[in-house]
Formats: sequence, C-alpha cells, structure tokens
Amino acid sequence: FPLGKRMSKPREQGLTMIIDKGLGPAETRDILHVGGQYIDFWKLGFGTSALYPPEMLAEKVQLIRSSGIEVYPGGTFMEVAILQEKLDEYLYLAQNTGFTAVEVSDGTIDLPGEIRERAITRAAEIGLRVLTEVGKKEQGMPAPVADLAALVRKDLQYGAYRVILEGRESGVNVGLYDENGRLIRDEFEELLSLIDDPRALIWEAPLKDQQRDLIIRFGPDVNLGNIPPREVLALEALRVGLRADTLQTTLNRRAAG
Amino acid sequence: FPLGKRMSKPREQGLTMIIDKGLGPAETRDILHVGGQYIDFWKLGFGTSALYPPEMLAEKVQLIRSSGIEVYPGGTFMEVAILQEKLDEYLYLAQNTGFTAVEVSDGTIDLPGEIRERAITRAAEIGLRVLTEVGKKEQGMPAPVADLAALVRKDLQYGAYRVILEGRESGVNVGLYDENGRLIRDEFEELLSLIDDPRALIWEAPLKDQQRDLIIRFGPDVNLGNIPPREVLALEALRVGLRADTLQTTLNRRAAG
Amino acid sequence: FPLGKRMSKPREQGLTMIIDKGLGPAETRDILHVGGQYIDFWKLGFGTSALYPPEMLAEKVQLIRSSGIEVYPGGTFMEVAILQEKLDEYLYLAQNTGFTAVEVSDGTIDLPGEIRERAITRAAEIGLRVLTEVGKKEQGMPAPVADLAALVRKDLQYGAYRVILEGRESGVNVGLYDENGRLIRDEFEELLSLIDDPRALIWEAPLKDQQRDLIIRFGPDVNLGNIPPREVLALEALRVGLRADTLQTTLNRRAAG
Repeated sequence: FPLGKRMSKPREQGLTMIIDKGLGPAETRDILHVGGQYIDFWKLGFGTSALYPPEMLAEKVQLIRSSGIEVYPGGTFMEVAILQEKLDEYLYLAQNTGFTAVEVSDGTIDLPGEIRERAITRAAEIGLRVLTEVGKKEQGMPAPVADLAALVRKDLQYGAYRVILEGRESGVNVGLYDENGRLIRDEFEELLSLIDDPRALIWEAPLKDQQRDLIIRFGPDVNLGNIPPREVLALEALRVGLRADTLQTTLNRRAAG
Repeated sequence: FPLGKRMSKPREQGLTMIIDKGLGPAETRDILHVGGQYIDFWKLGFGTSALYPPEMLAEKVQLIRSSGIEVYPGGTFMEVAILQEKLDEYLYLAQNTGFTAVEVSDGTIDLPGEIRERAITRAAEIGLRVLTEVGKKEQGMPAPVADLAALVRKDLQYGAYRVILEGRESGVNVGLYDENGRLIRDEFEELLSLIDDPRALIWEAPLKDQQRDLIIRFGPDVNLGNIPPREVLALEALRVGLRADTLQTTLNRRAAG
Repeated sequence: FPLGKRMSKPREQGLTMIIDKGLGPAETRDILHVGGQYIDFWKLGFGTSALYPPEMLAEKVQLIRSSGIEVYPGGTFMEVAILQEKLDEYLYLAQNTGFTAVEVSDGTIDLPGEIRERAITRAAEIGLRVLTEVGKKEQGMPAPVADLAALVRKDLQYGAYRVILEGRESGVNVGLYDENGRLIRDEFEELLSLIDDPRALIWEAPLKDQQRDLIIRFGPDVNLGNIPPREVLALEALRVGLRADTLQTTLNRRAAG
C-alpha cells in the first residue's frame, strides 16, 4: 500500500542519520531489527563514545556496521582532540575502535581553515568517510549565509562526503531554525541559491514539523539528520506518505506525475 | 496502599490505548511485562505497520494479542487503502496479519458518509473490533462540535465499539486542544452536552496535563488514548492517585463517598 | 581525551539521581550496562512501585542494588502511607522489598514538622538512607525561600543524607524554576546565601539547560536529580566537557587552574 517510493540501501540520497545518546545493547539490537534498513548514518552523540565501557563500545560499533550502517562519534569529540593537538591520534583511535566515519565541525571551537582542510583530507586519506558540519551551536551569533555556503563548497572540494546543517539535538534557535524550531525562510532560500546541489546537504531536523517541511520542500529523498532513534519508523512513514502530515502532499506529487 | 480502585482486564471502562511508533522485540516484551495489565488497546501508529520486516510484524502482533490486548494499525493506513479503493483487501490483510481491531478515520482524506458506514460495518462483519476517530488532523479547520457529535452517534449506531477524539501524537492545536495543549472548555462542554454517554469515547491525551484534567473531570476510569508506551505506569499512578497531580482529588473523591 | 575530572563510585559529590517511570527488565539492564557507573540514586517515580508485578519489582530492585546504586520509591508513595497513618508499615515494606533508601517529601500533603522529623529519624534508625525533598509541587504557591532554607537545615540535622530541591519531572513552573524552566536567579542566590553548604543539596534538573546552568555555576560535581534514564550519558558528557554546551566552560576552568 505505501504510496511513495524510496531507494533501498546502500543509497546516496534520502539518507537518514540518527543521534544516539547512549543506547544499550538490547535497545541497539531492537532499533537495528525494526529500522536498520531505514538508517544510513548512526552518530554516537556529543562525546558519549568516550564514556562507554570500552569493550561494549567496540561491540556496539561492530553490530551497527554489520547492518550496513556508517557509524561515527559526535563532532564535539574531534573538536576536543583538535584543541589538544591530537588530530592524528584521534583519527587512528576512531578507526581502531571500528568507526567508519568522522564528523569535522566547529560547533564550539574556532577552527582555522587550514586545520579544517587538514582534518578532512587526513580522515579521507586513511579511509574514513567524512561528514562536515556548518553552523555554530551558539545562539545569537549566526554566521552570514554566504559564509556557510562558501564553507559547504570548500568542504566538498576537500573530500567531504556530505555537509551537515547544524540543528542540534533540540532543533530550536540554532542554524536556520528560529526560537520555535521553524525554518527561517529567507536565509533558507538564500542558502539554497548559493549551493550547487542541495543533495550534498544533510539537514539536522530532530522535530517532526521540520522533517515534514523538508520532505514537502525536497521530496521523500531529502537527507535528514539528528533523528531520535525511536522516530525512525515514524520518519519513514512521513517520507512515503503513510502519515497524515504528508499523505496529501504525496498524493499531489503522484497526481503531478 | 493504592487509594483509587480500578477494574481489572478485560474491562469496558478505564481503557488505556497506547501509540507505538516502532518498538522492537525487547522493548515490546518489556512494556508487556511491566504494563501489560494496564493496556487495553495497542496501536501501531500511522502507517508504520507497512514498514516492519513482515515476519517481525506478525510475531509482534501475536505477542501483544497473547497478553489480552487488542492490537490495530493506525487509521492513516486505512485511509490510504480507501483512497486506492482497496478497503476489503485492507481488512483481510489486517485480519490475516493478526490484528484484532481497525480504526476508521478521516484525519486526512474526505470520507463520504456511506463509505465510512461501509468501512465500519464490513470490518465488524468479519469480526474485527472497530474504533472510529472524529476530529480532523489539520489545524485551523475544526469541524463544528454539533457535526462531531452527530458523527459519534452514527458511528456507534453502525457498530463502532468506541469513538476516539483526535489528539494526534503531539496533543497540541488539534481537535478540542488549543495551541498549548489545553482543553477548549466551551467546545468540550458543548460536546458532552450533545453525547448520550461519554463512556463511549476514548480521549487521545498524550500529555500528562491532559490526562490529569480528564481524570479529574471523569474519574479514574476515563478512556484515554495515544499514551506513549513508556508512560503507561505513570498514567496508572495518575489514575489511582499515586502521583502528586491527582492525590488530592483522589482523597476528596474518597471523602465524598 | 575527556577534559573534566570526575570522582568514581561510591562518591559523595557529583551525584546523579535518575527518575524511572516504569522501565522493563531489558531496558533496566541496558541502562545499568551503559550508564551504571554514572548513576548514584535510582528513583522509581511517583507511586509506580505499587504497580509492578511484585516478583518483578523485587528482582529489579535487587539488580539495581547489585550495581552499587541506591534505589528508592518516589516520595508520593510515602505521603500516601503517612496520610493512612502507616509510616512504620511503609518503611518495613520498603526495606523488605529491597529498597535501600526512602524519600520524605510534602509535595502534596501538609506534613507537620514533628511527623517529618519522625519519618526521617525512623527511616534512618532502621538503616535506610534518607533523602528529603523541599518545595511544593503546586504552582503559584511557592514557600518563602527562608522557610525552604530552614527546612533544609532541620532535615540534615535529623539525619537526612541529602536534601532534594523539587523540580518535578517537567522542570517547569515549580520550585526555583519559572514557566520556561529557567532558574529564578534572585531566589536561587537567596537560598544559597542561607545554606551552609550547597553540596548537601540535590537539584532536580530534568532539562538539559538546567543541567548546564547548574554545572556551569557549581562545577562538574554538582548533585543532580530527576535525570531521565536515557540522558545519563548525555549528562555525563555535559559534566566532563564532552558536549558543546560546557566545552568552553571546562576549558576556561582548566585554564584558571
């Protein structure tokens, strides 16, 4: 009965990235069981990967990988490593733990362009898939949209696989979201006008209304991130029109061709 | 020590309906273990039932049934089937999968009265328990209360077991709830004045303050729906006065006789 | 890589208390597995402990204890017992079930000073660890800060191990939090000026911004309560500066020596 069509894995579009704040072994298996086919990237949020019992971390990472999902530690962790001038140690440690990807971000620290470039190229060289993130975490200090767009272009050029638009875990008052979690339309459209291909972006969209708006704007195969793990099936239902919020749009889209 | 009294299962009043957005096998068992005796209806939300690996869905449905709980797919799923003129196929598929109930709703589509009637009577004929839902999902377009009341009466007459008052998963800005999730008192009282027996209703009340208000208004044996699965014990504590919010009311009720 | 330092268990400061609203066996084990070393107190919220199948409750309590975590029933439960003049029965029942602590609160009922004193001293006598709570649950009726401070002093003098500042499960419009969940600065500072040692307090802080503000104010070893179980690792990341919100502060603290 599903109305919308979706690519199956491994796919290059319609990516879903989840944020995991510390799921245990049984919960991890449950989510892989029910939603594994709908998840493409699995982020161990913030620096939580440093807080697991080490053998459990390795096991968990392995379990996620074996379901065909890229797994990586939150960007804050690499920011701490860069602050300590331990970039290479960090990358090798991540790889040895079994992570298949990393995130280069400057959510908190000021990251000079040449260090950002080196982080991206080094990670790519040793075989890690690189996601980068743009958009500061602090409220009230948004970067000009033109700067964001320039950063997106550079990151892709240096070898980033996709660029993430910051939305935090809350989705509120950050990046392109206002204090009610709504997309700031002007900045959103300005950014799109400055980007070659929006399919290179992953939109952090933890809130349902954000997911709905982006699906209505870009179609079911928009790349979405910071999805709470227990919302994976609900998001998939949104994508394919099996939820009230997008059923009408999906029908219109089909009618249009 | 509990202060309030509650009927045990199977019960006809004080029903609790939960909304499941994709619980895995271990989580499902956990919730049945801890809260199974407090749950009467288990809804696989939206169209998520189409998104499970098929054999897992059948197993899950069986597990829920075997705990004496009615289990059914979200109403959006049947709306899609009706749009595709596949009502009978839908009902047989639901029954073959093991579902014991269905929900007839018009949350998104416009459902002509005769099709609504046919959906209710057909489902009842083949032995499915029928829940219907009233109240559109779209904000800003509330149906007049008199129309809602008329629909409730008709649905019950055609064979619906209970009629659900729409509250969505969010509980905000929908049906009888305002943009802060509070009951709109005038419409609420008007509806009650037009209904023969409010015990034929199930109130979707995902938020704790909504649950508390309805318990204070109708007593511990009000029918409540769209309860998040992990709130089942907290709701039961509310019902029997084991939570601060209703302890005082429960005491007053006892004092009054 | 972690930046901040934390004491290991059993610790007297930097305590984390979680509120459990009905976790099943698999979820309980998961949380102990991943976060057990970061949890000091485990509260079975409200009166939910009366609602578990009895043998499951005993098993669960035992499992939590065996991870070196104090476990206790929510304060509302004891309030009900006191109302029924069954204080001693309650304390023995709690102990026999395996609970290692109790909470003395007056969230709903009016608790005369001598009964509060007796509850604290009786519980301590039979070997239970005693937490008390100050701050009414009802909104709009805040106790004067001077009264709160006096109660804190008395409770500690009678034998309370720590005193909890009420924040409810929501963290909004209660105790020292305003309707947006922000600390009311004036009352907060007034309370601190009236307390000998703020380390005797546990701050209920269910919301991330509350946790962040208190960590920035008091350092990583502030005592925090009503933490949702699935936020334990995220909170620990906040404490040690592995999350964007506190990374800058942790760096400043280190720079300052």
